[in-house]
Amino acid sequence: MTKTVRFAAEGGPEVLELVDVDLGEPGPGELRLRVAAIGLNRAEAMFRAGTYFERPGEFPAKLGYSASGIVEAVGEGVTGFGIGDEVSTVAGFSMRDYGVYGEAAIVPAAAVLRRLDGLDAAETVALWGSFLTAYGAIVDEGHVRPGDFVLITAASSSVGLATIDVVNHIGAIPIAATRTAAKKQRLLDAGAAHVIVTDDEDIAERTREITAGRGAGFVFDAVAGEGVRALSDATAKGGTIVVYGALDTKETPFPLWYAPTMRMFNAFDLTLNPERLARAEQFVRAGVRAGTFRPRVDRTFDLADIAEAHRYLEANGQFGKVVVTAGG
Amino acid sequence: MTKTVRFAAEGGPEVLELVDVDLGEPGPGELRLRVAAIGLNRAEAMFRAGTYFERPGEFPAKLGYSASGIVEAVGEGVTGFGIGDEVSTVAGFSMRDYGVYGEAAIVPAAAVLRRLDGLDAAETVALWGSFLTAYGAIVDEGHVRPGDFVLITAASSSVGLATIDVVNHIGAIPIAATRTAAKKQRLLDAGAAHVIVTDDEDIAERTREITAGRGAGFVFDAVAGEGVRALSDATAKGGTIVVYGALDTKETPFPLWYAPTMRMFNAFDLTLNPERLARAEQFVRAGVRAGTFRPRVDRTFDLADIAEAHRYLEANGQFGKVVVTAGG
Repeated sequence: MTKTVRFAAEGGPEVLELVDVDLGEPGPGELRLRVAAIGLNRAEAMFRAGTYFERPGEFPAKLGYSASGIVEAVGEGVTGFGIGDEVSTVAGFSMRDYGVYGEAAIVPAAAVLRRLDGLDAAETVALWGSFLTAYGAIVDEGHVRPGDFVLITAASSSVGLATIDVVNHIGAIPIAATRTAAKKQRLLDAGAAHVIVTDDEDIAERTREITAGRGAGFVFDAVAGEGVRALSDATAKGGTIVVYGALDTKETPFPLWYAPTMRMFNAFDLTLNPERLARAEQFVRAGVRAGTFRPRVDRTFDLADIAEAHRYLEANGQFGKVVVTAGG
Repeated sequence: MTKTVRFAAEGGPEVLELVDVDLGEPGPGELRLRVAAIGLNRAEAMFRAGTYFERPGEFPAKLGYSASGIVEAVGEGVTGFGIGDEVSTVAGFSMRDYGVYGEAAIVPAAAVLRRLDGLDAAETVALWGSFLTAYGAIVDEGHVRPGDFVLITAASSSVGLATIDVVNHIGAIPIAATRTAAKKQRLLDAGAAHVIVTDDEDIAERTREITAGRGAGFVFDAVAGEGVRALSDATAKGGTIVVYGALDTKETPFPLWYAPTMRMFNAFDLTLNPERLARAEQFVRAGVRAGTFRPRVDRTFDLADIAEAHRYLEANGQFGKVVVTAGG
């Protein structure tokens, strides 16, 4: 029997329960992993709460995209992985089918990457998902170029910090937006060329100051909602706002007449496409080798404290990834 | 003295007045035209009503972007035009500065093109603005390719009909959306490959039927507002909605998660850029030579009946351009 997180109904963090289940053997194309560390994603809190773009198909429901661990069983037809391999999962499946919150998990082999050299399990889960997202949005789809200004909201999130690293890696200029002054110095230390404290400063005005009046060519937004009006004013003519999260669950407007191009970034377009995922993997490995892509583990929780870990995640106090250790 | 349309306050069509003014001589870079025909644009009704993206700087205010006529005076420094030349204006200026509703008008020479061969003044004003917009959005910025499905809302408007012609000209496939069945046959006759009657049919469902389930790769929308949700459902994965008008003046949402790329098309980006305008002009002349770009004059009014012409424009009953003849 394996201790695994399940929830019997959508709701707050308290619906998460640690239960003993028999995972069985991996099916064709699947692996079973002994899990060492789990990286928490905002999407999982939304899936738990019933506010994600997809809902559980049945209850009790599974949860979790990102784990690092060791292969302990290999399903039929899987090539390239053997028992004992150190690996990580990426969000390349539906949580209606798979979930990695547990001491072990069955996952599709197509969503498994080899662990990064020189990083431990917690650092690895902190790194993969965030950097794949940053690469996918900024480089692969965004075509951001050296010298471009990139405005990043919720910059202290693990994706925000990864985006700062990716933007610097390619010679573009990261502008970090954060709500309060509390994290300003840490964002500068993390590589932000400029930090805008949105409780104290007008984001559009400050962005125009920083960019000599032109505005940011690319805005990467985790928040959505009414805030995109101000982001629209902060965007250069011909620029783009890419929304990848919805911390604000209220309606998002398309601000007519002066609206820049607006797009959603969907990480599944990358993780479910083997060619794109392979390129993303190469890019992330290159940044890790160069030392420019740094894992940011904010805090670790024990698996038994998963509800508390979700509460902490949703309080938005973190600087980097919230990680759960599963002992594997 | 020249009979010219002015309005002393923003409001309904009744604010438009025909008054005698002394236009004076054109300044540096300007021409004075004897006006033969004026093409009415939705933007002018919005400018009159105070709902356009810019408002009059002073009253009485001028109005009007599109006129055909004959050069009767040439300002300092203008080259390439002489007295007696047959020309047309395009929307390459602000109505805070210039307006062509009148028997004569002073306009910037940069916004003047030579008349199209073989077309009379009414046909010429019906053609230029609509086809420049269709070219700019579909070809120059939109990069629509042969075989692409293009969904066109308000398809009976002059821009809608021009878009059908442009889409066919490049080998793409126009799907026309119209509210009632009244104009369905005329849209098919005008070259629409498919017509969706939105009062009777679900636009997303019908578009998916027509496109073998994929949705339209490009949606060109004159309406905005809540309707973009259904358009989003009608758009293919990776596709784009380009909004160029706001017949619906209510808030426009950006429909998160499944939203395609959304952009505004702003014709000024083309008309105020001499290189882009020159390319657009060549494209439109090529289509007119080929016979694939056809002027669509819906109805003509006398200049004295300008208020009635605006009322007719705003009733949305037209099929093509509403034209005002000014006798020049």
